[in-house]
Amino acid sequence: MALRTPLTTLLGIEHPILSAPMAGVAGGALAGAVSQAGGLGLIGGGYIDPDWIEREWAAAGNARVGIGFITWRLEAAPAALDAALAHRPAAVMLSFGDPAPYLERIRAAGAVAICQVQSVADARRAAEAGAGVIVAQGADAGGHGAGRGTFALVPAVVDAVGPLPVVAAGGVGDGRGLAAALAMGAAGVLVGSRFYASREAQASPQAKDRAAAASGDHTIQSSVYDRVRGFAWPAPFRLRTLRNRFTERWHGSEAALDDAIEAVRADYARAVAAGDTEEAAVVIGEAADLIRDVAPAGELVRRMVDEAETALRAGSGCIA
Amino acid sequence: MALRTPLTTLLGIEHPILSAPMAGVAGGALAGAVSQAGGLGLIGGGYIDPDWIEREWAAAGNARVGIGFITWRLEAAPAALDAALAHRPAAVMLSFGDPAPYLERIRAAGAVAICQVQSVADARRAAEAGAGVIVAQGADAGGHGAGRGTFALVPAVVDAVGPLPVVAAGGVGDGRGLAAALAMGAAGVLVGSRFYASREAQASPQAKDRAAAASGDHTIQSSVYDRVRGFAWPAPFRLRTLRNRFTERWHGSEAALDDAIEAVRADYARAVAAGDTEEAAVVIGEAADLIRDVAPAGELVRRMVDEAETALRAGSGCIA
Repeated sequence: MALRTPLTTLLGIEHPILSAPMAGVAGGALAGAVSQAGGLGLIGGGYIDPDWIEREWAAAGNARVGIGFITWRLEAAPAALDAALAHRPAAVMLSFGDPAPYLERIRAAGAVAICQVQSVADARRAAEAGAGVIVAQGADAGGHGAGRGTFALVPAVVDAVGPLPVVAAGGVGDGRGLAAALAMGAAGVLVGSRFYASREAQASPQAKDRAAAASGDHTIQSSVYDRVRGFAWPAPFRLRTLRNRFTERWHGSEAALDDAIEAVRADYARAVAAGDTEEAAVVIGEAADLIRDVAPAGELVRRMVDEAETALRAGSGCIA
Repeated sequence: MALRTPLTTLLGIEHPILSAPMAGVAGGALAGAVSQAGGLGLIGGGYIDPDWIEREWAAAGNARVGIGFITWRLEAAPAALDAALAHRPAAVMLSFGDPAPYLERIRAAGAVAICQVQSVADARRAAEAGAGVIVAQGADAGGHGAGRGTFALVPAVVDAVGPLPVVAAGGVGDGRGLAAALAMGAAGVLVGSRFYASREAQASPQAKDRAAAASGDHTIQSSVYDRVRGFAWPAPFRLRTLRNRFTERWHGSEAALDDAIEAVRADYARAVAAGDTEEAAVVIGEAADLIRDVAPAGELVRRMVDEAETALRAGSGCIA
């Protein structure tokens, strides 16, 4: 069984499932496993550590994968895009900033330019700049995002940029989300949190177990983890994580956090090393309720496709 | 054509579409038109003005409708529930507070008890208390809501309370949203914003036109309109409206608003009377992009069903 959409045709993949390029979490093993299962895996270019990125290209082996960058970080390290294109990626995804300066190079290298946006206005701008695929990311997402929810954003972006393929992101945790996205007119989904709790993800074992046990009732969008990590994210982007002792202590007390930042950073580094999920970030979104185990990424792709088919048949079965 | 789900069976309706009991906006004409078109219309019991409510029961005529209450307001005016039940409503919806004290009376009167929740935890509590239907409302909604997005909340609530019928709310602006909700395992949708811009809604003509022209990019959840209207909403509920000069001036300056409240109230009353949509609230949510006209509510129900069927067929058409 397979799910065919304009996205699978454009990318030459079997299933319309992309794994999110989660910074420091989505390495070559995860991206490769998703691609081998018929989706498209995206390496997380993140904060652009050239050595890490090269290692992860190697870890992806012969799998046909792509890479994603944080656009405002790419501005300070534009050579990273050339290095990525030298690997002949299937696609390059840009998010969180103006993609226009990079799209021509991506297309010229034969890669599909995927632009993630968080509003209808930004979707229109990315389409006009020449994006090949638009990811409409709602604030339900884990990791960085903005304010609009996924549910109404996706059909609005479909209307704004069609016939360009639109991918739904933010809150897609299982095949029901994929089915819903297709019913809304999207051509596929981009999935982060569910793959965070995959065997191949480079999150700590403790963080993965926590993700599998958590509810989406207990997440928060905040700047506190960006502050402690020293990442100067521009507005309106904030990081959605699980609520824990760290977010309870510092969210709403950002000035005090900044005042104590050196000491907090030392504690934070120790918590990360120890896999302490009450202090270190567990970077998942509101799909948390739908994550109930830590499984191989390829198996997650297969489950998602099976569930989506069941959901789509059940949905159309309502037509009397 | 019709859409059959456990919700249509339970409520004895043709299409799984409920119109939201928008306070001061969803009167008997709107509720009646939705019911006559095969959905179920809910009169907005809102802040409980007994004379207004009685008038709206009369305006619904012979149509079989229901009523919705703001639960924390009902606590101060419990006789309003008895008055409503005397009209033999098809359903009574409770939202924003603990529904448990009221459910037995609703059931005993032969009405379906619909409980709207904003989290998985509250869905479980409402189900345990005896709700007949759970509405999972995401923050994408216009009007009052909380924090979680619709997209991941709906399937999580389905898992938490099944086989109880779950209705998706928050961001459902057209039939694609209905189709997506059914694919997620919901048994129907509750729609507010789209019916706000209906001919029968008791919003001002200017507010309806503004809703039809607006984008969901330009809404905000805030307490400022509750402050000026003197409604002491408990946390975590805030009101989503369009951004306008009023929200730009006061959101983030709540203390200054409270200090100036008497003068602001006088200005606000004049703005409401004049239909000034830069000062008076336009209470719609992120589905705004999907609203492109002001139409009769019955026509909106029919469109939504047609669009949902098309969307469900297109979705299942992706299965190769």
